Amino acid sequence: MNIFKFIGMTLVTSTLVIANTNLDKKIKDAGLKAIPANKTELMKLIDPKNTISDEKVALGKQLYFEPRLSKSGIISCNTCHNLGLGGVDGVPAAVGHKWTANPHHLNSPTVYNAVFFAAQFWDGRSPDLEDQAQGPMQASPEMAAPQSLVVERVNSIPAYIESFKKAYGKDVKVDFKTITATIGIFERTLVTPSRYDAFLNGDKKALTDAEKEGLNLFIDKGCTACHTGIALGGTMQPFPAVGKYKYANIGDFKGDKNGMVKTPTLRNITETAPYFHNGAIWSLKEAVQEMGRTQLGADISDADAAKIVTFFGALKGKKPEITYPQFPASTEKTPKPDFK
Amino acid sequence: MNIFKFIGMTLVTSTLVIANTNLDKKIKDAGLKAIPANKTELMKLIDPKNTISDEKVALGKQLYFEPRLSKSGIISCNTCHNLGLGGVDGVPAAVGHKWTANPHHLNSPTVYNAVFFAAQFWDGRSPDLEDQAQGPMQASPEMAAPQSLVVERVNSIPAYIESFKKAYGKDVKVDFKTITATIGIFERTLVTPSRYDAFLNGDKKALTDAEKEGLNLFIDKGCTACHTGIALGGTMQPFPAVGKYKYANIGDFKGDKNGMVKTPTLRNITETAPYFHNGAIWSLKEAVQEMGRTQLGADISDADAAKIVTFFGALKGKKPEITYPQFPASTEKTPKPDFK
Repeated sequence: MNIFKFIGMTLVTSTLVIANTNLDKKIKDAGLKAIPANKTELMKLIDPKNTISDEKVALGKQLYFEPRLSKSGIISCNTCHNLGLGGVDGVPAAVGHKWTANPHHLNSPTVYNAVFFAAQFWDGRSPDLEDQAQGPMQASPEMAAPQSLVVERVNSIPAYIESFKKAYGKDVKVDFKTITATIGIFERTLVTPSRYDAFLNGDKKALTDAEKEGLNLFIDKGCTACHTGIALGGTMQPFPAVGKYKYANIGDFKGDKNGMVKTPTLRNITETAPYFHNGAIWSLKEAVQEMGRTQLGADISDADAAKIVTFFGALKGKKPEITYPQFPASTEKTPKPDFK
Repeated sequence: MNIFKFIGMTLVTSTLVIANTNLDKKIKDAGLKAIPANKTELMKLIDPKNTISDEKVALGKQLYFEPRLSKSGIISCNTCHNLGLGGVDGVPAAVGHKWTANPHHLNSPTVYNAVFFAAQFWDGRSPDLEDQAQGPMQASPEMAAPQSLVVERVNSIPAYIESFKKAYGKDVKVDFKTITATIGIFERTLVTPSRYDAFLNGDKKALTDAEKEGLNLFIDKGCTACHTGIALGGTMQPFPAVGKYKYANIGDFKGDKNGMVKTPTLRNITETAPYFHNGAIWSLKEAVQEMGRTQLGADISDADAAKIVTFFGALKGKKPEITYPQFPASTEKTPKPDFK
């Protein structure tokens, strides 16, 4: 080996070692947290008051994929929060009942790791997943189903009543709140541990050097002011003031009471284009640069943005394996599909 | 036990024994066939010229659930042929791109056991599943995707190209025909053995006495003139002349060249309401009586129709367990969703 090349490599290696030593402290200061490697710790973190059980999760999964919870009978939670597409639909604004786009031009946020958010919806108007699930099911441009229709459909199918009894006891009332809460309980399990978590949990080889460099930049540029905590976003409440994203005046979305928009999680971000609450940007690199300009007042170079995106690749998590559910058949009492 | 009741039971039992002895011959004469209990025999039956492999089936499954094969990016094969809903959508006429109902008011037929049909589509215009898959993907009221768009979308995603190479070899051309054929290969595996098959394969206790009585009536009434073969329907080509179903003049569907409509399979029929090519009847019992009147010129009593429906319960088959696929992320080259 050429001696100069050898010295050069040694220097590069030494720099990385120093950078990585600093990285531990930087990560701590930035408030970045791993998904616990230990399942017991993880369950403590995601278990709601209404305790998770296998029966509730299995039933919640069925309901999550169940198109008959929509007025038409052809739209399910999974239509806009597709568990095969990073938990989103991959379109700028969700399109639902009667082919209606979201009137506020809002982009469907991912359901993966949403359990970690301090509040749900882009304006944070919902406290948790159980509450959130009530929204899209009723919203006229989404699933468009009145509560009474959802309750009547589910109660007309004896196999569903049996499943609710198994999950909650024989005296369960299968009302709208219980139906939607069960979906929320399933969604709590949609957590995606990644190489980034392995790294934070102590496996120093879990990230490549390029990814570590990207992580360093991500912290140094100040992205962690908002993209912090276990989900790298969405964990601060009220929303950080810097969250007032002014990129594009599409739609009439007003944000929370302070006019702020929730910081989205960066987990699985390489899978969830287009970006921002209005789905305005398709390129992840451009999205990073846009955030630099509008939120941090900083021009992030092409090279640096690319490095940060390289780090984002390590946030792609392992998705829970989902067996596609079999739905019990409708009966003659089941309210018919309604496309109007 | 009351001696008269005992004698009565003995008589009933003897009658059933005689009836069941006759049933074997009746079943043979009616052309009813079981799904082979032996997997090798089954594979011989369903294997296309283009040999099935695990790689092709796994890729075909991904593509079956892949919404980006539609123009909008939100409709997949599974939208109208939902594998959790007996392989159908449970609505009278399929609704697709731009919320457009099928212009001929045609009901989505089940994909389960469709491999056994002599021809695909209600008018039989397609010879097999590989060919059939080309239709709905392009049809403007369904997935509405031009061939070139489908090809461009798939080819813009390197992970898909890798999967095609693994399935077909490194020189594979990922064109429209290969993409749709791969979906067809997956669909060939969607076979649902039932208690009825166990019965025909020799397990005489697989059907209840009430189901055997229903099967007897099903044969005696002449239903097997069309609902015959391994799928109890769809196996005759050209379509039987009696197949000219005149129930309702909904839409402008003309049937095959003789004006005939394909006989649908009765497998999983308890799960696939509404019934008929136009989805005009929701009640299975009414559907049986309607067929009696229009096809057989016979009034089937409420009691007899109910018994036949009881037999249909034994045709509910075990569905293959499907792990919901993870789709590879779009790239910046991937053509964007188009809702117009």
